[in-house]
Amino acid sequence: MASEKEIRRERFLNVFPKLVEELNASLLAYGMPKEACDWYAHSLNYNTPGGKLNRGLSVVDTYAILSNKTVEQLGQEEYEKVAILGWCIELLQAYFLVADDMMDKSITRRGQPCWYKVPEVGEIAINDAFMLEAAIYKLLKSHFRNEKYYIDITELFHEVTFQTELGQLMDLITAPEDKVDLSKFSLKKHSFIVTFKTAYYSFYLPVALAMYVAGITDEKDLKQARDVLIPLGEYFQIQDDYLDCFGTPEQIGKIGTDIQDNKCSWVINKALELASAEQRKTLDENYGKKDSVAEAKCKKIFNDLKIEQLYHEYEESIAKDLKAKISQVDESRGFKADVLTAFLNKVYKRSK
Amino acid sequence: MASEKEIRRERFLNVFPKLVEELNASLLAYGMPKEACDWYAHSLNYNTPGGKLNRGLSVVDTYAILSNKTVEQLGQEEYEKVAILGWCIELLQAYFLVADDMMDKSITRRGQPCWYKVPEVGEIAINDAFMLEAAIYKLLKSHFRNEKYYIDITELFHEVTFQTELGQLMDLITAPEDKVDLSKFSLKKHSFIVTFKTAYYSFYLPVALAMYVAGITDEKDLKQARDVLIPLGEYFQIQDDYLDCFGTPEQIGKIGTDIQDNKCSWVINKALELASAEQRKTLDENYGKKDSVAEAKCKKIFNDLKIEQLYHEYEESIAKDLKAKISQVDESRGFKADVLTAFLNKVYKRSK
Ligand SMILES: [Mg+2]
Ligand SMILES: [Mg+2]
Ligand SMILES: [Mg+2]
Ligand SMILES: [Mg+2]
Ligand SMILES: [Mg+2]
Ligand SMILES: [Mg+2]
Repeated sequence: MASEKEIRRERFLNVFPKLVEELNASLLAYGMPKEACDWYAHSLNYNTPGGKLNRGLSVVDTYAILSNKTVEQLGQEEYEKVAILGWCIELLQAYFLVADDMMDKSITRRGQPCWYKVPEVGEIAINDAFMLEAAIYKLLKSHFRNEKYYIDITELFHEVTFQTELGQLMDLITAPEDKVDLSKFSLKKHSFIVTFKTAYYSFYLPVALAMYVAGITDEKDLKQARDVLIPLGEYFQIQDDYLDCFGTPEQIGKIGTDIQDNKCSWVINKALELASAEQRKTLDENYGKKDSVAEAKCKKIFNDLKIEQLYHEYEESIAKDLKAKISQVDESRGFKADVLTAFLNKVYKRSK
Repeated sequence: MASEKEIRRERFLNVFPKLVEELNASLLAYGMPKEACDWYAHSLNYNTPGGKLNRGLSVVDTYAILSNKTVEQLGQEEYEKVAILGWCIELLQAYFLVADDMMDKSITRRGQPCWYKVPEVGEIAINDAFMLEAAIYKLLKSHFRNEKYYIDITELFHEVTFQTELGQLMDLITAPEDKVDLSKFSLKKHSFIVTFKTAYYSFYLPVALAMYVAGITDEKDLKQARDVLIPLGEYFQIQDDYLDCFGTPEQIGKIGTDIQDNKCSWVINKALELASAEQRKTLDENYGKKDSVAEAKCKKIFNDLKIEQLYHEYEESIAKDLKAKISQVDESRGFKADVLTAFLNKVYKRSK
């Protein structure tokens, strides 16, 4: 029998084909030849729904909490409204991932070839990424134009998009895969990169969108959400970096490659902060090399520096901070601490 | 002495450094490290102001006509307002060109290496393209948020961006440089591609933006503009295609390469419409080949089919149509036929 989680996922997935149909109808209305309509539908379907859908589902979950309902209690019209915003985040993510895979020269994504690796696609993927982004504003216009918060959510998408691009830029110039220079790394830069590249669009955006639909739009409330969700997003990414290095393949469902890929990960940044001159020299010589012996030398230093233990200390401390902040949330204007607790529970002591 | 045209260009160019400064200040406000601020400023300066600036200048020129003033009579505050919209179009163009050069594997643009060909840039150019687009919405927000037409121009940029991407997609799948298939070509597709890829953002967008600032926003007036500017943009591109094949290098400032590049040009589409079976066979075998003998065979057929003469007939006929349409313009709500005449005069019988 399908679990509640699977049923929710199914319901969310069922909305997407209607959106593809709507976008395609708008191409036909422009007089677009069939081959281009088919191309766009293919790109939308290939790049958007194949992931975990956490960001999209969070919009729905958050809205339900704010409305004092379960997801199941949301009527279909109300449900679709928030689900469309969830799909807009998934489209934003698709736009970023198509481009990120090209910039990182990745081969596969979500168990299939990266879009630009599909033989007939190639560099056209750049324009396809643009068109995934454009779909967001088409959908916002057709479904939200008459809402008083239309301009707010449009601006929010613009701002979060720009923030994510800034984080991506910092990541690209700090840690190019082919030019290792650990002097460019620092915990401060790591914090900037993960906050901008991940936390805004993955943690703050879903909650802020649900808040607008629920009519909870006071800047004080948006700030209450941000003050927890941005550090929580940073914690999530630090955990991701930790698991890449210290998680077992069974736990994380893949073999970590951050060391060989010269990633500006929390693990290396923490190690750089603590390393002796000799350890630093070893890291300089071995980090970012496509070589498992070099990788093992880095891991040895991470173990000597007790990075794993430092991670657990960080985790306990940030979780405690966040719980304290959540307990202080002012619910007087309708915002709910439960929204934040739900997010924290998804991250805390997650092992995959 | 500088001509009026050069002085106008200078005044327009003088606005851009302030916009770069403003955008950079917003990065600093985010706490962005200096190297990323410098990178963004470099990308903005490298990719935006180096072209002819026709699109950007058109916003200013059109606004002056609608205000019954010369450009020189516009006060500095008023001037900067419309000039910023002009720069937003130039940013949109920069966004498209950075990406187009990557997709076309071009080497140079405006007399310098394409951005992605700059050694330290490479694939990061994709994210830089995104950030050129994002600048548009930053600037619209900071300079137009309190205008009643703010949402209209924001939506207009979204729509025209999407239209241009649709045209680019059709172009990319109709005429890939490495796979010649003339059966994919047709005059109808050519018309679609050039209308969407060029006419909306280069001809309609500057005028529509100036109209919003001037307070001429009736859909009837926007339609009057579109009804002339879209076919005029198509004519401009057909002329560009004609000049690529039949213009002398002295005229056009470069050596045409459309035949060797398998371009879906008006010239080949017109020829395909008229070619005998034998001529068609020669075109199939020789078009899109990187080979000057093959190119000469195509040109011979174009001459045999009198394409040059057909172009001149087309030019006279479209110019006559457009003049007739312009003479019918209803100026009762403040729109001015002169706006359209100014555009037509820039295109008609242009030789470069
Ligand atoms: Mg990647
Ligand atoms: Mg990456
Ligand atoms: Mg990771
Ligand atoms: Mg090109
Ligand atoms: Mg191209
Ligand atoms: Mg040309």
